[in-house]
Amino acid sequence: VDIYRCPRCSNSYPMSEPRWVCDCGSPLELESPGPLEKDGLRGQEFTLWRYVAVLPIRRGEDIVSLGEGWTPLVPLEPQSSGIYVKLEFTNPTGSFKDRGASVLVSKLKELGVREVVEDSSGNAGAALAAYCARAGIDCHIYAPAYTSPGKLRQIPAYGADLVLVEGSRKDTAQAVLAAASKTYYASHVYNPLYLEGTKTVAYELWEQLGWRVPRVVVMPIGHGGMLLGIYKGFSELLHAGYIGSLPRLVGVQARACAPLAEAFQRGASEPVPVEEGATAAEGIKIVEPVRGVEILAAIRQTGGACLAVSEEEIEEAGSELGRRGFYVEPTSAAALAGFERLRSQGPMEEKTVIILTGSGLKAT
Amino acid sequence: VDIYRCPRCSNSYPMSEPRWVCDCGSPLELESPGPLEKDGLRGQEFTLWRYVAVLPIRRGEDIVSLGEGWTPLVPLEPQSSGIYVKLEFTNPTGSFKDRGASVLVSKLKELGVREVVEDSSGNAGAALAAYCARAGIDCHIYAPAYTSPGKLRQIPAYGADLVLVEGSRKDTAQAVLAAASKTYYASHVYNPLYLEGTKTVAYELWEQLGWRVPRVVVMPIGHGGMLLGIYKGFSELLHAGYIGSLPRLVGVQARACAPLAEAFQRGASEPVPVEEGATAAEGIKIVEPVRGVEILAAIRQTGGACLAVSEEEIEEAGSELGRRGFYVEPTSAAALAGFERLRSQGPMEEKTVIILTGSGLKAT
Repeated sequence: VDIYRCPRCSNSYPMSEPRWVCDCGSPLELESPGPLEKDGLRGQEFTLWRYVAVLPIRRGEDIVSLGEGWTPLVPLEPQSSGIYVKLEFTNPTGSFKDRGASVLVSKLKELGVREVVEDSSGNAGAALAAYCARAGIDCHIYAPAYTSPGKLRQIPAYGADLVLVEGSRKDTAQAVLAAASKTYYASHVYNPLYLEGTKTVAYELWEQLGWRVPRVVVMPIGHGGMLLGIYKGFSELLHAGYIGSLPRLVGVQARACAPLAEAFQRGASEPVPVEEGATAAEGIKIVEPVRGVEILAAIRQTGGACLAVSEEEIEEAGSELGRRGFYVEPTSAAALAGFERLRSQGPMEEKTVIILTGSGLKAT
Repeated sequence: VDIYRCPRCSNSYPMSEPRWVCDCGSPLELESPGPLEKDGLRGQEFTLWRYVAVLPIRRGEDIVSLGEGWTPLVPLEPQSSGIYVKLEFTNPTGSFKDRGASVLVSKLKELGVREVVEDSSGNAGAALAAYCARAGIDCHIYAPAYTSPGKLRQIPAYGADLVLVEGSRKDTAQAVLAAASKTYYASHVYNPLYLEGTKTVAYELWEQLGWRVPRVVVMPIGHGGMLLGIYKGFSELLHAGYIGSLPRLVGVQARACAPLAEAFQRGASEPVPVEEGATAAEGIKIVEPVRGVEILAAIRQTGGACLAVSEEEIEEAGSELGRRGFYVEPTSAAALAGFERLRSQGPMEEKTVIILTGSGLKAT
């Protein structure tokens, strides 16, 4: 434990050094904790820190929390038949990214990091800005200058420094990498501590369903931070012997940008190169998911699926969620669209969970 | 119990008839439940329905829930000295109004109401629209035609019918009253079932503080729905003998529209007539709070206070909250502004709670 491990070249690094990527360029992974005592597994907190026993933070005073996690699990339809939605949009900054940011920033506090850079104009940027504010860490968020101003209001509200970069998205990526040579790159894409945060969703679902595993979990995937976190959490529970099987993990992409769904269809083990089209589901418009190999393997291992939905299906699913009382961003609506596609192909199993990742108020 | 009582003319009505106002024009009240068994007080739910034992809903199948309540209580500052913020903005529609809407709509479902009208373009309108969607009740929300379109996106997202009325705010009020003669007026201002929802904040604070009462609770007040609900909840706990005293309740208004703060200053028992000025704190820009007499009495009985803060103080408090990781609407920032004013006048007691009522994403 407390070691970053590279899944591709098998190099490893101690967590005591701030590091976001392997020397070989691959994203890193973290070992899972050893055998868990069920008695000590669940704490008193009604946040994700309820599961601090399985998180890589050693001292309670390093925890940087804004009340994230322990989000409601609600039937999709009133008196429904075992189809649930997990309301990740009720997290403090309005998305599931708070989970990863809370764990990552707690670790950075432990390590004494004082300043970070990150490139995200969306949910991840807002979450990092909020948790850095809480921890007193200087936060610089890089975004393309063409990003719509409405989208960028939340980040400076947390006191973060917003760096607008002229040119293409690649220019922004280069600018943040240049900055990362001098300070810490708190990448929500590369850093495996993000997955430690999202893995708590698995523990929560297990507890909320009466210590039972869901049969299917459906969610949007771009870089796959939610899917890989959930996979890790349920894998830990399986290895500890608390559950007998993994749920089927279903990742949903927008047809306009579906490198993983394409790969899944073709039986490929790596994401397929695609041309990026226009989609309302901005949170999953990811052409090159850096953990694509691991995502496809996890989906296949669980007997899950990866599918792509159209803009019309996303829009219709957003309306359907609204009519059920849930106001979410299009990225989250994509998950329901994927679920509806599956349901149209045959009855869905009981204990299916659909993850609603982000608030509709963000898209307003 | 199960009876609406008028605090002014002492008339009473059975709750089995849908009714929103006394024949004398006064808002109605609800009796508190009889002696509570502490063992049966707290349920298993991690929503406000945890406290269903003290709520006027008889059948579980009538409960209309989207996962509201049981919101995080977080230290204002990390490792802080007993000053907390209650994150009501993490409720499903982004504000504390979900509490009242959940209880009210549950009752309407019990009564078989199929259609409602309401006049609110803000948090209350969004909350009612969401819960009516969940319950399958037709919902018509009246708002002045001049309301900014951005503010009104959330309401139709829940499938509610948005009725834009030309003319002044009074024209909208008249239009909804005309409609109320033919259907049910689900008024967040008049209906005492809203206060049943907000009273659960008191029960939650009591439990979250380890079954102890906070010393001071600070919140924004317009119509006083949060303050009167909290007052009712703690009063029930006091009468049941579970707590030894009430917390001091502090209501904060914007100086631009402060009929209650003015009255409190002058020692008056009724709201003072004021001219409405411009304020960013739209949620508390209320010239004539219909329960003003009861609000002033509650504040005085608890040894609390009512104060008015300037636009500059509201803006500065909003920035301060952002720098601590909380992105809230200006109405909520007003509460912190009031707290900072009190703190500048002397040290604040431990176990002070500041209620953060609505999400900053709504104001974006």
